[in-house]
Amino acid sequence: MRATLMYGAGDVRVEEVPDPRIVDPTDAIVRVTLACVCGSDLHPYRSMPAGGPAAPMGHEFLGVVEETGSQVTGLRKGDFVVSPFAFADNTCAICRDGFHTACPNGGWYGAGGVGGAQAEAVRVPQADGTLVKIPAEADPTVLASLLALSDVYLTGYHAAHMGRVNAGKTVTVIGDGAVGLSAVLASRRMGAERIILMGGHKARTDLGREWGATDVVPERGAEGVAKVMELTGGQGSHVVLEAVGYMLAYEQAYGVVRPGGVISRVGVPQYEQAPVGFGSLFGKNAGLTGGPAPVRAYLETAIADVLAGRIEPGRVFDAEVPLDRVADAYRAMDTRENLKVVVRP
Amino acid sequence: MRATLMYGAGDVRVEEVPDPRIVDPTDAIVRVTLACVCGSDLHPYRSMPAGGPAAPMGHEFLGVVEETGSQVTGLRKGDFVVSPFAFADNTCAICRDGFHTACPNGGWYGAGGVGGAQAEAVRVPQADGTLVKIPAEADPTVLASLLALSDVYLTGYHAAHMGRVNAGKTVTVIGDGAVGLSAVLASRRMGAERIILMGGHKARTDLGREWGATDVVPERGAEGVAKVMELTGGQGSHVVLEAVGYMLAYEQAYGVVRPGGVISRVGVPQYEQAPVGFGSLFGKNAGLTGGPAPVRAYLETAIADVLAGRIEPGRVFDAEVPLDRVADAYRAMDTRENLKVVVRP
Repeated sequence: MRATLMYGAGDVRVEEVPDPRIVDPTDAIVRVTLACVCGSDLHPYRSMPAGGPAAPMGHEFLGVVEETGSQVTGLRKGDFVVSPFAFADNTCAICRDGFHTACPNGGWYGAGGVGGAQAEAVRVPQADGTLVKIPAEADPTVLASLLALSDVYLTGYHAAHMGRVNAGKTVTVIGDGAVGLSAVLASRRMGAERIILMGGHKARTDLGREWGATDVVPERGAEGVAKVMELTGGQGSHVVLEAVGYMLAYEQAYGVVRPGGVISRVGVPQYEQAPVGFGSLFGKNAGLTGGPAPVRAYLETAIADVLAGRIEPGRVFDAEVPLDRVADAYRAMDTRENLKVVVRP
Repeated sequence: MRATLMYGAGDVRVEEVPDPRIVDPTDAIVRVTLACVCGSDLHPYRSMPAGGPAAPMGHEFLGVVEETGSQVTGLRKGDFVVSPFAFADNTCAICRDGFHTACPNGGWYGAGGVGGAQAEAVRVPQADGTLVKIPAEADPTVLASLLALSDVYLTGYHAAHMGRVNAGKTVTVIGDGAVGLSAVLASRRMGAERIILMGGHKARTDLGREWGATDVVPERGAEGVAKVMELTGGQGSHVVLEAVGYMLAYEQAYGVVRPGGVISRVGVPQYEQAPVGFGSLFGKNAGLTGGPAPVRAYLETAIADVLAGRIEPGRVFDAEVPLDRVADAYRAMDTRENLKVVVRP
């Protein structure tokens, strides 16, 4: 079959690879119907050293179950499913806590012998715990929104959930990428009336406004912080949703967070060390939370919301390419020409 | 009057200084009845460079109001009061949120022209917002416990409060100093049934056990982390209360926190940068919270608890010195000969 491999920064190729096959009895093989490129795929696209082993890419997909391992009981050939971007058993204590991305039996697509989803098919470990069936009657027009549940929308949702967004709170969202816009949509649904979106790309912030942003701050760094402080009467934002992952975004986050407020991060941090001492977080009792979204925990509810037309998160997709042109999708997202691109095998 | 000044690491002196006087109409002058030395006073005691201006020391005290400024309406001469370790107006939006240590009209004893409390008297800015009256009938035997409310007990309480300790959670407390032991006591009162105390000083951990610790882990670093992981079936602790402030304690904290759990810090961080990326906090959705305790927010309830005999936080005091011997108190706490020392002017 054909699959997407990254060989180094800027070097994405579609190649023939062996078909995936059942390895563990809890596996399923899923034929991919729709996949897409993630903002987090752009991190290696910008920085991956060449010369090492190629990385299988893609972790967001809808597909049809093609084969199941002997211990898979909840799925069968022909089921139409959505997958969270990480697999998990959905039964252990950590999953029951709602933190599936830390499941001791879970893991990541494209690593440890599991392929990527920007491919014709993929092996899904812990298939019973991971995959969620989409009702057969799902209208084809909502497929993009269902695909958005695999990662982007529920990552934005996770940011808002961990930041305990509610009606009384001022929320600042850092980043007008697809996750940031999703965080705006989720915050609005959780009741936030004041949502400040920090982003400078007008077509994107326009969608952000449509989804609930009440203010847009295009300035970055100290200037952006000053603007948010002004908008909040000098007090800052109760909740800051950081949907970027770069240090500049983190610095903006602790700059605008109100005393006693919380920064919720879902942009994969491109740093390990960061300021957390008296001058940044501690002095004003600011909290830090977030991490890889346990999409599985939120999936059933979100599928129902999409099918009922209450949310249309698929609007973050503004282009589609066939699998063979996946490299174009990376390029267009890297240059910010496209917000998020569907890949159709 | 006599007051405590620090000239550099290890150099604490009691000297004659001018009597404090009303500067702002919202000030009060309080004659100090009892003060004490704080674990955080040991940070400059170990590291303050010599040669600069001397620092007035002390921020925990009980005392009697001696004089009030023209705008002070809730206090009068002769009132017996307890002060939080930081002053605040107790009326602004940030104080109403419960984060008095970030009050824009607040500040710290021993800084900005305000003296320290290891002295015969002290000027209290924002006196109406800061000081809380102790009922006249308070038994002299509870004075130590009331003094402990000025900082140490309510700092431990704040750690547990910010960490959302409750009956269902396993709590690990890092540090067997007076704040760590207070965090154990507060956690027990909030219903935690499993409280693991990381500390190696037996007399202290014995008090911790009496106050509710169910397990004591004397090992530090990787060995201590392994022990806590073993005690928690490999899953870690829902809540970690970090009552030390050194990097080793922070590293232990993220080592033992459970996925989705939270680290609540109240030890003043002796670092600004720390690990917060995928390998420490982000990857397991661990949160970080805490900061300087807004003691004022918790004071009335805690006074009632002390007067009713429900808590006896003053048991952290294991020695008393007259003001002239305050240097002995620093020395004894620095060498861990004493846990926490009362200073009587």
